[in-house]
Amino acid sequence: MSEATEPVKTAAPIDIWFDFASNYSHISVMRIERDAAGCGVQIVWKPFLLGPIFKALGWETSPFILHKPLGDYMWKDMTRQCAKYGVPWRQPTVFPRLSVLPLRVASIGADQPWIGDYCRAIMHRNFVEDRDIHTPEAVGAVLAGLGLPADELIAQALAGPNKLKLRGATETAQALGIFGAPTFFVRGEMFWGNDRLDDALDFAA
Amino acid sequence: MSEATEPVKTAAPIDIWFDFASNYSHISVMRIERDAAGCGVQIVWKPFLLGPIFKALGWETSPFILHKPLGDYMWKDMTRQCAKYGVPWRQPTVFPRLSVLPLRVASIGADQPWIGDYCRAIMHRNFVEDRDIHTPEAVGAVLAGLGLPADELIAQALAGPNKLKLRGATETAQALGIFGAPTFFVRGEMFWGNDRLDDALDFAA
Repeated sequence: MSEATEPVKTAAPIDIWFDFASNYSHISVMRIERDAAGCGVQIVWKPFLLGPIFKALGWETSPFILHKPLGDYMWKDMTRQCAKYGVPWRQPTVFPRLSVLPLRVASIGADQPWIGDYCRAIMHRNFVEDRDIHTPEAVGAVLAGLGLPADELIAQALAGPNKLKLRGATETAQALGIFGAPTFFVRGEMFWGNDRLDDALDFAA
Repeated sequence: MSEATEPVKTAAPIDIWFDFASNYSHISVMRIERDAAGCGVQIVWKPFLLGPIFKALGWETSPFILHKPLGDYMWKDMTRQCAKYGVPWRQPTVFPRLSVLPLRVASIGADQPWIGDYCRAIMHRNFVEDRDIHTPEAVGAVLAGLGLPADELIAQALAGPNKLKLRGATETAQALGIFGAPTFFVRGEMFWGNDRLDDALDFAA
Protein backbone atom coordinates (compact mmCIF):
# COMPACT_ATOMS: atom_id res chain seq x y z
CA MET A 1 0.00 0.00 0.00
CA SER A 2 1.42 3.32 -0.98
CA GLU A 3 0.47 4.88 2.37
CA ALA A 4 2.84 2.47 4.12
CA THR A 5 5.76 3.13 1.76
CA GLU A 6 8.80 4.52 3.55
CA PRO A 7 9.46 8.09 2.42
CA VAL A 8 12.30 8.45 -0.06
CA LYS A 9 15.45 9.60 1.72
CA THR A 10 16.27 13.08 0.51
CA ALA A 11 19.60 13.69 2.24
CA ALA A 12 21.91 15.45 -0.22
CA PRO A 13 25.62 14.61 -0.33
CA ILE A 14 28.15 17.02 1.15
CA ASP A 15 31.30 18.02 -0.76
CA ILE A 16 34.30 18.73 1.47
CA TRP A 17 36.98 20.84 -0.23
CA PHE A 18 40.17 20.54 1.80
CA ASP A 19 43.96 20.87 1.77
CA PHE A 20 46.19 18.86 4.10
CA ALA A 21 48.15 22.06 4.80
CA SER A 22 45.08 23.75 6.28
CA ASN A 23 44.70 23.57 10.06
CA TYR A 24 40.95 24.09 10.16
CA SER A 25 40.62 21.37 7.49
CA HIS A 26 42.26 19.11 10.08
CA ILE A 27 39.29 19.44 12.42
CA SER A 28 36.71 18.83 9.70
CA VAL A 29 38.57 15.94 8.09
CA MET A 30 38.87 14.25 11.49
CA ARG A 31 35.17 14.57 12.36
CA ILE A 32 33.19 14.63 9.11
CA GLU A 33 32.66 10.88 8.65
CA ARG A 34 31.50 10.46 12.23
CA ASP A 35 29.16 13.46 12.07
CA ALA A 36 27.83 12.83 8.54
CA ALA A 37 27.05 9.19 9.38
CA GLY A 38 24.91 10.44 12.26
CA CYS A 39 22.59 12.19 9.82
CA GLY A 40 22.82 9.79 6.87
CA VAL A 41 24.76 12.20 4.65
CA GLN A 42 27.21 10.91 2.03
CA ILE A 43 30.62 12.60 1.75
CA VAL A 44 32.29 13.63 -1.50
CA TRP A 45 36.00 14.27 -0.94
CA LYS A 46 37.40 17.21 -2.91
CA PRO A 47 41.15 17.62 -2.42
CA PHE A 48 42.54 20.88 -3.87
CA LEU A 49 45.52 23.20 -3.53
CA LEU A 50 44.86 26.22 -1.37
CA GLY A 51 48.14 27.94 -2.36
CA PRO A 52 47.08 29.02 -5.89
CA ILE A 53 43.76 30.27 -4.49
CA PHE A 54 45.59 32.41 -1.92
CA LYS A 55 47.99 33.69 -4.63
CA ALA A 56 45.03 34.77 -6.77
CA LEU A 57 43.75 36.76 -3.78
CA GLY A 58 47.17 38.43 -3.50
CA TRP A 59 48.40 36.37 -0.54
CA GLU A 60 51.81 34.78 -1.00
CA THR A 61 51.18 32.38 1.88
CA SER A 62 48.59 31.64 4.57
CA PRO A 63 46.85 34.73 6.02
CA PHE A 64 47.88 33.30 9.40
CA ILE A 65 51.52 33.80 8.43
CA LEU A 66 50.97 37.12 6.64
CA HIS A 67 49.19 38.68 9.62
CA LYS A 68 50.77 37.91 12.97
CA PRO A 69 47.75 38.86 15.14
CA LEU A 70 45.56 36.43 13.14
CA GLY A 71 48.17 33.70 13.44
CA ASP A 72 48.73 34.17 17.17
CA TYR A 73 45.00 33.97 17.76
CA MET A 74 44.50 31.00 15.44
CA TRP A 75 46.81 28.72 17.44
CA LYS A 76 44.88 29.46 20.63
CA ASP A 77 41.59 28.94 18.83
CA MET A 78 42.80 25.63 17.36
CA THR A 79 43.65 24.31 20.81
CA ARG A 80 40.19 25.22 22.11
CA GLN A 81 38.30 24.01 19.02
CA CYS A 82 40.11 20.66 18.86
CA ALA A 83 39.30 20.12 22.55
CA LYS A 84 35.67 21.03 21.85
CA TYR A 85 35.34 18.53 18.99
CA GLY A 86 37.48 15.83 20.62
CA VAL A 87 40.05 15.96 17.84
CA PRO A 88 43.72 15.19 18.69
CA TRP A 89 46.02 18.13 18.00
CA ARG A 90 49.51 19.47 18.58
CA GLN A 91 50.71 22.81 17.22
CA PRO A 92 53.05 21.92 14.33
CA THR A 93 56.58 23.33 14.21
CA VAL A 94 56.26 23.82 10.43
CA PHE A 95 53.23 25.66 9.03
CA PRO A 96 51.86 25.53 6.44
CA ARG A 97 53.40 22.21 5.38
CA LEU A 98 53.88 21.26 1.72
CA SER A 99 50.95 19.05 0.74
CA VAL A 100 51.03 18.49 -3.03
CA LEU A 101 51.95 14.78 -3.04
CA PRO A 102 49.44 13.67 -0.38
CA LEU A 103 46.77 15.70 -2.19
CA ARG A 104 47.64 14.00 -5.48
CA VAL A 105 47.16 10.64 -3.76
CA ALA A 106 43.85 11.86 -2.30
CA SER A 107 42.89 12.87 -5.82
CA ILE A 108 43.36 9.25 -6.93
CA GLY A 109 41.58 7.84 -3.91
CA ALA A 110 38.72 10.35 -3.67
CA ASP A 111 36.04 7.76 -4.50
CA GLN A 112 37.81 4.76 -2.95
CA PRO A 113 36.69 3.17 0.32
CA TRP A 114 40.03 4.06 1.97
CA ILE A 115 39.82 7.83 1.38
CA GLY A 116 38.54 8.73 4.86
CA ASP A 117 41.15 6.65 6.69
CA TYR A 118 43.87 7.99 4.41
CA CYS A 119 42.91 11.64 4.93
CA ARG A 120 42.76 11.24 8.69
CA ALA A 121 46.16 9.47 8.72
CA ILE A 122 47.80 12.31 6.73
CA MET A 123 46.22 14.95 8.97
CA HIS A 124 47.30 13.01 12.05
CA ARG A 125 50.87 12.95 10.77
CA ASN A 126 50.85 16.73 10.13
CA PHE A 127 48.84 18.08 13.05
CA VAL A 128 49.32 15.48 15.79
CA GLU A 129 52.72 13.85 15.10
CA ASP A 130 54.16 17.12 13.73
CA ARG A 131 55.89 15.37 10.80
CA ASP A 132 56.29 16.28 7.14
CA ILE A 133 53.69 14.89 4.76
CA HIS A 134 55.05 15.80 1.31
CA THR A 135 57.77 13.19 0.66
CA PRO A 136 57.17 9.81 -1.03
CA GLU A 137 58.50 8.23 2.18
CA ALA A 138 55.91 10.03 4.34
CA VAL A 139 52.98 9.29 2.05
CA GLY A 140 54.25 5.75 1.45
CA ALA A 141 54.37 5.06 5.18
CA VAL A 142 50.78 6.26 5.60
CA LEU A 143 49.55 4.14 2.67
CA ALA A 144 51.46 1.04 3.83
CA GLY A 145 50.03 1.55 7.31
CA LEU A 146 46.57 1.23 5.74
CA GLY A 147 47.59 -1.96 3.91
CA LEU A 148 47.54 -0.21 0.52
CA PRO A 149 50.04 -0.66 -2.37
CA ALA A 150 52.10 2.45 -1.65
CA ASP A 151 54.53 2.36 -4.60
CA GLU A 152 51.78 1.74 -7.12
CA LEU A 153 49.55 4.52 -5.78
CA ILE A 154 52.39 7.05 -5.59
CA ALA A 155 53.41 6.23 -9.17
CA GLN A 156 49.79 6.79 -10.28
CA ALA A 157 49.67 10.00 -8.25
CA LEU A 158 52.76 11.36 -10.01
CA ALA A 159 51.55 10.48 -13.52
CA GLY A 160 50.55 13.32 -15.85
CA PRO A 161 46.77 12.76 -15.94
CA ASN A 162 46.52 12.81 -12.15
CA LYS A 163 48.59 16.00 -11.88
CA LEU A 164 46.12 17.59 -14.28
CA LYS A 165 43.22 16.26 -12.18
CA LEU A 166 44.41 18.07 -9.04
CA ARG A 167 45.14 21.23 -11.00
CA GLY A 168 41.65 21.01 -12.51
CA ALA A 169 40.10 20.60 -9.06
CA THR A 170 41.91 23.72 -7.90
CA GLU A 171 40.62 25.67 -10.91
CA THR A 172 37.11 24.41 -10.17
CA ALA A 173 37.47 25.54 -6.55
CA GLN A 174 38.39 29.01 -7.73
CA ALA A 175 35.49 29.09 -10.18
CA LEU A 176 33.13 28.11 -7.35
CA GLY A 177 34.28 31.14 -5.33
CA ILE A 178 36.24 29.13 -2.76
CA PHE A 179 38.76 31.28 -0.85
CA GLY A 180 39.67 29.07 2.10
CA ALA A 181 39.51 25.56 3.50
CA PRO A 182 37.63 23.61 4.52
CA THR A 183 34.71 24.65 2.33
CA PHE A 184 31.54 22.61 1.98
CA PHE A 185 28.93 22.51 -0.78
CA VAL A 186 25.44 21.10 -0.27
CA ARG A 187 22.77 21.43 -2.97
CA GLY A 188 24.87 24.19 -4.56
CA GLU A 189 25.12 26.22 -1.35
CA MET A 190 28.58 27.11 -0.07
CA PHE A 191 29.55 26.85 3.62
CA TRP A 192 33.01 28.05 4.63
CA GLY A 193 35.02 26.73 7.54
CA ASN A 194 34.80 24.03 10.16
CA ASP A 195 32.46 26.42 12.00
CA ARG A 196 29.83 25.82 9.30
CA LEU A 197 30.13 22.03 8.99
CA ASP A 198 27.17 21.41 11.31
CA ASP A 199 25.01 23.92 9.43
CA ALA A 200 25.99 22.27 6.15
CA LEU A 201 25.10 18.81 7.49
CA ASP A 202 21.75 20.09 8.77
CA PHE A 203 21.09 21.55 5.33
CA ALA A 204 21.98 18.23 3.70
CA ALA A 205 19.92 16.02 6.00
CA MET B 1 26.41 27.19 59.08
CA SER B 2 29.13 27.43 56.52
CA GLU B 3 28.03 24.17 54.83
CA ALA B 4 24.73 25.80 53.89
CA THR B 5 26.31 28.95 52.48
CA GLU B 6 25.48 29.48 48.85
CA PRO B 7 28.61 29.13 46.72
CA VAL B 8 30.11 32.42 45.56
CA LYS B 9 29.11 33.15 41.99
CA THR B 10 32.20 32.97 39.86
CA ALA B 11 30.84 34.03 36.46
CA ALA B 12 33.38 36.38 34.88
CA PRO B 13 32.25 39.39 32.84
CA ILE B 14 32.48 39.33 29.06
CA ASP B 15 33.98 42.24 27.11
CA ILE B 16 32.44 42.77 23.67
CA TRP B 17 34.64 44.81 21.32
CA PHE B 18 32.50 45.98 18.43
CA ASP B 19 32.12 48.53 15.62
CA PHE B 20 28.70 49.55 14.27
CA ALA B 21 30.16 49.23 10.75
CA SER B 22 30.82 45.52 11.25
CA ASN B 23 28.16 43.14 10.01
CA TYR B 24 29.09 40.22 12.26
CA SER B 25 29.09 42.65 15.20
CA HIS B 26 25.42 43.22 14.28
CA ILE B 27 24.52 39.62 15.15
CA SER B 28 26.42 39.64 18.45
CA VAL B 29 25.19 43.07 19.55
CA MET B 30 21.60 41.99 18.88
CA ARG B 31 21.84 38.75 20.87
CA ILE B 32 24.47 39.21 23.58
CA GLU B 33 22.23 40.63 26.33
CA ARG B 34 19.65 37.88 25.85
CA ASP B 35 22.26 35.13 25.79
CA ALA B 36 24.49 36.51 28.57
CA ALA B 37 21.48 36.94 30.88
CA GLY B 38 20.73 33.25 30.38
CA CYS B 39 24.04 32.33 32.00
CA GLY B 40 24.34 35.18 34.50
CA VAL B 41 27.24 36.87 32.74
CA GLN B 42 27.75 40.65 32.91
CA ILE B 43 28.56 42.51 29.67
CA VAL B 44 31.25 45.18 29.31
CA TRP B 45 30.67 47.20 26.14
CA LYS B 46 33.87 48.12 24.29
CA PRO B 47 33.20 50.32 21.25
CA PHE B 48 36.26 50.81 19.01
CA LEU B 49 37.14 51.78 15.46
CA LEU B 50 37.89 48.82 13.22
CA GLY B 51 39.23 50.99 10.38
CA PRO B 52 42.61 51.88 11.98
CA ILE B 53 43.08 48.21 12.94
CA PHE B 54 42.50 47.14 9.35
CA LYS B 55 44.86 49.87 8.09
CA ALA B 56 47.61 48.61 10.41
CA LEU B 57 47.16 45.16 8.85
CA GLY B 58 47.57 46.71 5.41
CA TRP B 59 43.88 46.70 4.50
CA GLU B 60 42.49 50.02 3.25
CA THR B 61 38.91 48.87 3.87
CA SER B 62 36.96 45.77 4.94
CA PRO B 63 38.43 42.46 3.72
CA PHE B 64 34.92 41.78 2.40
CA ILE B 65 35.32 44.70 0.02
CA LEU B 66 38.99 44.03 -0.78
CA HIS B 67 38.32 40.41 -1.73
CA LYS B 68 35.19 39.85 -3.80
CA PRO B 69 34.87 36.08 -3.20
CA LEU B 70 34.92 36.70 0.59
CA GLY B 71 32.36 39.46 0.26
CA ASP B 72 30.01 37.49 -2.00
CA TYR B 73 30.08 34.61 0.45
CA MET B 74 29.70 36.82 3.52
CA TRP B 75 26.32 38.20 2.41
CA LYS B 76 24.95 34.68 1.95
CA ASP B 77 26.40 33.64 5.29
CA MET B 78 24.88 36.70 7.01
CA THR B 79 21.42 35.82 5.72
CA ARG B 80 21.74 32.26 7.03
CA GLN B 81 23.34 33.23 10.36
CA CYS B 82 20.79 35.94 11.13
CA ALA B 83 18.00 33.44 10.44
CA LYS B 84 19.74 30.91 12.70
CA TYR B 85 20.02 33.38 15.61
CA GLY B 86 16.63 35.01 15.02
CA VAL B 87 18.20 38.41 14.35
CA PRO B 88 16.46 40.80 11.90
CA TRP B 89 18.61 41.64 8.90
CA ARG B 90 18.58 43.23 5.46
CA GLN B 91 21.67 43.48 3.25
CA PRO B 92 22.65 47.17 3.38
CA THR B 93 23.13 49.15 0.19
CA VAL B 94 26.14 50.93 1.72
CA PHE B 95 28.91 48.86 3.31
CA PRO B 96 30.84 49.48 5.44
CA ARG B 97 28.97 52.53 6.78
CA LEU B 98 30.76 55.38 8.57
CA SER B 99 30.39 54.79 12.29
CA VAL B 100 32.59 57.28 14.18
CA LEU B 101 29.82 59.43 15.70
CA PRO B 102 27.63 56.58 16.95
CA LEU B 103 30.75 54.91 18.38
CA ARG B 104 31.67 58.16 20.18
CA VAL B 105 28.22 58.18 21.74
CA ALA B 106 28.61 54.49 22.69
CA SER B 107 31.91 55.48 24.26
CA ILE B 108 30.06 57.91 26.53
CA GLY B 109 27.29 55.46 27.31
CA ALA B 110 29.37 52.30 27.71
CA ASP B 111 28.58 51.95 31.42
CA GLN B 112 25.10 53.52 31.29
CA PRO B 113 21.90 51.47 31.59
CA TRP B 114 20.82 52.51 28.08
CA ILE B 115 23.91 51.17 26.27
CA GLY B 116 22.36 47.86 25.16
CA ASP B 117 19.19 49.46 23.78
CA TYR B 118 21.26 52.17 22.09
CA CYS B 119 23.63 49.70 20.40
CA ARG B 120 20.76 47.58 19.14
CA ALA B 121 18.94 50.64 17.80
CA ILE B 122 22.02 51.83 15.87
CA MET B 123 22.59 48.34 14.46
CA HIS B 124 18.92 48.07 13.53
CA ARG B 125 19.16 51.37 11.64
CA ASN B 126 22.27 50.19 9.72
CA PHE B 127 21.52 46.53 9.07
CA VAL B 128 17.72 46.33 9.10
CA GLU B 129 16.49 49.77 8.01
CA ASP B 130 19.49 50.26 5.69
CA ARG B 131 19.98 53.88 6.76
CA ASP B 132 23.09 55.94 7.50
CA ILE B 133 24.21 56.09 11.11
CA HIS B 134 27.01 58.67 11.10
CA THR B 135 25.18 62.01 11.04
CA PRO B 136 24.07 63.95 14.13
CA GLU B 137 20.52 63.65 12.77
CA ALA B 138 20.73 59.86 12.60
CA VAL B 139 22.28 59.42 16.03
CA GLY B 140 20.00 62.10 17.47
CA ALA B 141 16.91 60.28 16.20
CA VAL B 142 18.06 57.05 17.83
CA LEU B 143 18.82 58.76 21.15
CA ALA B 144 15.54 60.67 21.14
CA GLY B 145 13.72 57.42 20.36
CA LEU B 146 15.14 56.05 23.60
CA GLY B 147 14.00 59.13 25.53
CA LEU B 148 17.58 60.37 25.99
CA PRO B 149 18.86 63.99 25.76
CA ALA B 150 20.19 63.74 22.20
CA ASP B 151 21.75 67.21 21.83
CA GLU B 152 23.53 66.99 25.16
CA LEU B 153 24.93 63.50 24.52
CA ILE B 154 26.09 64.37 21.00
CA ALA B 155 27.83 67.50 22.30
CA GLN B 156 29.60 65.39 24.92
CA ALA B 157 30.46 62.81 22.28
CA LEU B 158 32.10 65.45 20.10
CA ALA B 159 34.14 67.00 22.93
CA GLY B 160 37.89 66.48 22.96
CA PRO B 161 38.20 64.13 25.93
CA ASN B 162 35.67 61.72 24.47
CA LYS B 163 37.36 61.72 21.07
CA LEU B 164 40.56 60.73 22.87
CA LYS B 165 38.65 58.03 24.74
CA LEU B 166 37.55 56.28 21.54
CA ARG B 167 41.00 56.65 20.05
CA GLY B 168 42.48 55.16 23.22
CA ALA B 169 40.06 52.24 23.06
CA THR B 170 41.14 51.56 19.50
CA GLU B 171 44.81 51.61 20.52
CA THR B 172 44.00 49.23 23.38
CA ALA B 173 42.23 46.92 20.92
CA GLN B 174 45.33 46.85 18.77
CA ALA B 175 47.58 46.20 21.77
CA LEU B 176 45.32 43.29 22.76
CA GLY B 177 45.86 41.69 19.35
CA ILE B 178 42.34 42.39 18.07
CA PHE B 179 42.11 42.16 14.26
CA GLY B 180 38.36 41.99 13.67
CA ALA B 181 34.96 42.49 15.22
CA PRO B 182 33.20 41.36 17.22
CA THR B 183 35.94 40.16 19.57
CA PHE B 184 35.27 38.97 23.11
CA PHE B 185 37.54 38.78 26.13
CA VAL B 186 36.79 36.62 29.14
CA ARG B 187 39.34 36.16 31.95
CA GLY B 188 42.02 37.46 29.58
CA GLU B 189 41.19 34.94 26.84
CA MET B 190 40.33 36.26 23.38
CA PHE B 191 37.44 34.89 21.31
CA TRP B 192 37.02 36.24 17.77
CA GLY B 193 33.74 36.48 15.93
CA ASN B 194 30.06 35.93 16.55
CA ASP B 195 30.85 32.23 15.98
CA ARG B 196 32.76 32.19 19.28
CA LEU B 197 30.25 34.12 21.43
CA ASP B 198 28.71 30.95 22.84
CA ASP B 199 32.13 29.49 23.67
CA ALA B 200 33.08 32.78 25.37
CA LEU B 201 29.88 32.78 27.42
CA ASP B 202 30.44 29.14 28.43
CA PHE B 203 33.96 30.09 29.50
CA ALA B 204 32.61 33.04 31.53
CA ALA B 205 29.81 31.15 33.27
